[in-house]
Amino acid sequence: MATPLVDQVLDGAATDEALARLAGWRREGKTIHKVYKFGSFMESVEFVNRVAKAAEAMDHHPDITISYDEVGMTLSTHKHDAVTQADIALARRIEEAA
Amino acid sequence: MATPLVDQVLDGAATDEALARLAGWRREGKTIHKVYKFGSFMESVEFVNRVAKAAEAMDHHPDITISYDEVGMTLSTHKHDAVTQADIALARRIEEAA
Repeated sequence: MATPLVDQVLDGAATDEALARLAGWRREGKTIHKVYKFGSFMESVEFVNRVAKAAEAMDHHPDITISYDEVGMTLSTHKHDAVTQADIALARRIEEAA
Repeated sequence: MATPLVDQVLDGAATDEALARLAGWRREGKTIHKVYKFGSFMESVEFVNRVAKAAEAMDHHPDITISYDEVGMTLSTHKHDAVTQADIALARRIEEAA
């Protein structure tokens, strides 16, 4: 049986390699992070709603900040206190939602 | 003509007095802040949507954090870099939305 994404822990080098294909995402400690900029507060909230739907479907949830037209996304796998393939998969879904 | 809420700046003592009637809200520097706890990630997101609607109606917007079942609200009036009556009014609307 394949190891679940959430148990596929990535070290710093493996994280950086995965992020090379995710524009604007960067590693921050044991998380990956990106700030998205929109045209208004409501566009920010609509983006958060699209991300929430994707996150629920994956059962893997980002930490989110909303500051008017900017939305920050911070991903980490709490179970391992590390970045895993589940975070990379969620980042890809967030990119699709942006 | 009455001074708009957003121009009614509150000093620390006046802020504390207003917050005495807003359970769980506290002054943090030049902002007021509260963390709300819900039963799930989606309940958090639904709360944020209710708050967003109220904020749009007031044209005054909170900074929001979502961390799974916890939602943080931070209010401040950027124009004055201070807490104003607009923040107190928004906090009351957020309480109603919780």
